[in-house]
Amino acid sequence: MYQVLDRESVCDYLRSIPAVMEVLGSADSLQVAEIGDGNLNFVYRVSSLNDASRSVILKQAVPYLRMVGEEWPLARDRMTYEIRALTVYNQLVPDFVPCIYHADESMSTLVMQCLDDHIILRHGLIAGEQYPDVGRHIGKFLAETLFRTSAFSMDSQARRQLMDRFTLNAELCKLTEEFIFTFPYMEHHSNYSNPLTDQWVRENLRNNSEYKLDVLKFKELFITKTDALLHADLHTGSLMVNQSESYVIDMEFSYFGPFGFDIGQIMANFWLCTTSHLHRSTNHDMVNWLIDQTRVVWQVFSSQFLKLWFEATESAMLTPGLLNKTELDDYKGRFMQKLLQETMGFAACCVARRTLGIAGVADIRDVEDLEIRSKLEIINLKLSMLLMKRHDSVIDIEDVITLISDFYRAQPNI
Amino acid sequence: MYQVLDRESVCDYLRSIPAVMEVLGSADSLQVAEIGDGNLNFVYRVSSLNDASRSVILKQAVPYLRMVGEEWPLARDRMTYEIRALTVYNQLVPDFVPCIYHADESMSTLVMQCLDDHIILRHGLIAGEQYPDVGRHIGKFLAETLFRTSAFSMDSQARRQLMDRFTLNAELCKLTEEFIFTFPYMEHHSNYSNPLTDQWVRENLRNNSEYKLDVLKFKELFITKTDALLHADLHTGSLMVNQSESYVIDMEFSYFGPFGFDIGQIMANFWLCTTSHLHRSTNHDMVNWLIDQTRVVWQVFSSQFLKLWFEATESAMLTPGLLNKTELDDYKGRFMQKLLQETMGFAACCVARRTLGIAGVADIRDVEDLEIRSKLEIINLKLSMLLMKRHDSVIDIEDVITLISDFYRAQPNI
Repeated sequence: MYQVLDRESVCDYLRSIPAVMEVLGSADSLQVAEIGDGNLNFVYRVSSLNDASRSVILKQAVPYLRMVGEEWPLARDRMTYEIRALTVYNQLVPDFVPCIYHADESMSTLVMQCLDDHIILRHGLIAGEQYPDVGRHIGKFLAETLFRTSAFSMDSQARRQLMDRFTLNAELCKLTEEFIFTFPYMEHHSNYSNPLTDQWVRENLRNNSEYKLDVLKFKELFITKTDALLHADLHTGSLMVNQSESYVIDMEFSYFGPFGFDIGQIMANFWLCTTSHLHRSTNHDMVNWLIDQTRVVWQVFSSQFLKLWFEATESAMLTPGLLNKTELDDYKGRFMQKLLQETMGFAACCVARRTLGIAGVADIRDVEDLEIRSKLEIINLKLSMLLMKRHDSVIDIEDVITLISDFYRAQPNI
Repeated sequence: MYQVLDRESVCDYLRSIPAVMEVLGSADSLQVAEIGDGNLNFVYRVSSLNDASRSVILKQAVPYLRMVGEEWPLARDRMTYEIRALTVYNQLVPDFVPCIYHADESMSTLVMQCLDDHIILRHGLIAGEQYPDVGRHIGKFLAETLFRTSAFSMDSQARRQLMDRFTLNAELCKLTEEFIFTFPYMEHHSNYSNPLTDQWVRENLRNNSEYKLDVLKFKELFITKTDALLHADLHTGSLMVNQSESYVIDMEFSYFGPFGFDIGQIMANFWLCTTSHLHRSTNHDMVNWLIDQTRVVWQVFSSQFLKLWFEATESAMLTPGLLNKTELDDYKGRFMQKLLQETMGFAACCVARRTLGIAGVADIRDVEDLEIRSKLEIINLKLSMLLMKRHDSVIDIEDVITLISDFYRAQPNI
């Protein structure tokens, strides 16, 4: 039966789970710290007093939005989808997600590996840290999770069985539809406001009909396209990293959606950070490194995706004997190009929503000087509009990187 | 508990259902006829001996393919989806579907209105009958069912709740994926064979790479796009008509799929019949009437769809305040044009599968002379390839009708 855990009851709850106690050792000496700084859930770190290296993370969803309180109800079954997605990811990409010690849909709890030696990627990037493998890890994670849950890998019926486990993550899908694809492009009370930016937005973005109609095209894809199981909230705050490892966390938004959304969202978050380093850094090292990581993300994603595709001889989409080799290669080439174009469109939406919408990114919002912050915001909005305008015509990743590099080269240091 | 009904047990079963007995009157004098000529299910007509106008249809799914027998297992839960879709349609378009007297997912039974005064549209059309309102009825049916179950009408969460009721119609979706979008375009033992046609197909269709890659584009849409609740088997054998009424039946394939599939499939079936009348009719009356009905289908569909859209002020897709009137009109215009293009692509696939695949249409397959039949088949395949080649460039329905009319005008009488 569901009950909300607190610092006291967390220990009793964990003591009742043998698999967790195997990790923690002695049941007598547990210490608890509430460490969640997310918007949605409660997160506790529980460790052994005798041996601090023995620790677990417990995450529990409550039937409201944690950051607001009980007056903003939000069904706790979001944890159900996080549990389901993390279970799938543990099978597909065990190196890139925390392992699960215990999961209970009825209690909306998830007990998992504690990542003590890792920090939130966003915090590291803001501080100017570089992680040599993070782009490669993200590309691999994307290829494995997207390909293996798609109709290019699964058979038709198994795919529908898996899809059925996520269809009803309706409340969180609706949040994305509104906060990424709707409110930022109109006057809405939920939007962020910076007076210096607002004026520019009114004159340049909210009256740009082509741009808004393009956003709607991607909203329609988000709502109706079911390419694969997505993380669906894959930003730099959903990654915990160190110099050699990268872990993806927080998959409560997971659902079957368009391939390009996960890829575009993470690339957008690298570019949001790129913009911030026009101000945060005194030289272009970090700017160049961040842009290059988005190249790596795509390169590794696309080569791994095509490798998996080469190995998958039969699937819901492709039956041996239908296409000859030339046709198949042609099909794959067109597919990857269209996917890159869709990725750019989704990235454009993600850049805009993080600038205009309620959920900003610390990269920009932590800049205290409103004038400087506004300059960065306007750069982001110009980038969003550029990406959207050009998304349909990019041929390959070098095209994209040239576009992005030229764009940032034309910006002043701020 | 599930049991297969037969001619004897059907009466006992119906006698136990008060709502059905209200229709049939006296329980003593029932007569039963097995009338199903479909591939999948058993269908009985049960009527009162005292009053033949008191009658019902009982449809039951068995756990195998009726036309083949127990050696072709097919989950009987297909009836679950027919019940669910017919229930939705009874709310949305009660004038165009039989009313439901009783439905039981556990027994896989559906008891519904008997359509004694109606015949299968396909049979009427083959015989050269014209039905003045059928195109209009189909257009209205399509607009109401597709719009009202889409993200342009429903709110996001209600839409996902409805979608969830159909996600697991996996076995029948797989049949469509294979028999409409895969096997006809390759050598496959399930395909139909007419030696005179086979040679042409090998030389002109199965080596046409562009055509096959286009077919795959539509297969991908069928598998991954969830625009609305589709009938998903909407051919002229799924309509029962007379001079003033049209009823849609047999919705066991229903699932959330792309708008254009339902529209394209029914238009394709009118064109398959058009081809047959190059042989069946001595003049072009029927040819012209059939082509004109497809114009009417689209015209009525699109104007009713836009009317419903005008009335729907808020939905998952559109929020008041996002677009101004010009932008919204622009969005709708582009949407309808793209939908027509997708409709043409799906129609192209449906024409090809009915010509090359296991499930032909009586319009063509009942032509006994193999040489004549082959000529008609090759005309259909040319039409399929023409539609596919041109689908991306049609602007409006007049474009399509001109294309189709010119095509048929260039064909000889056969």
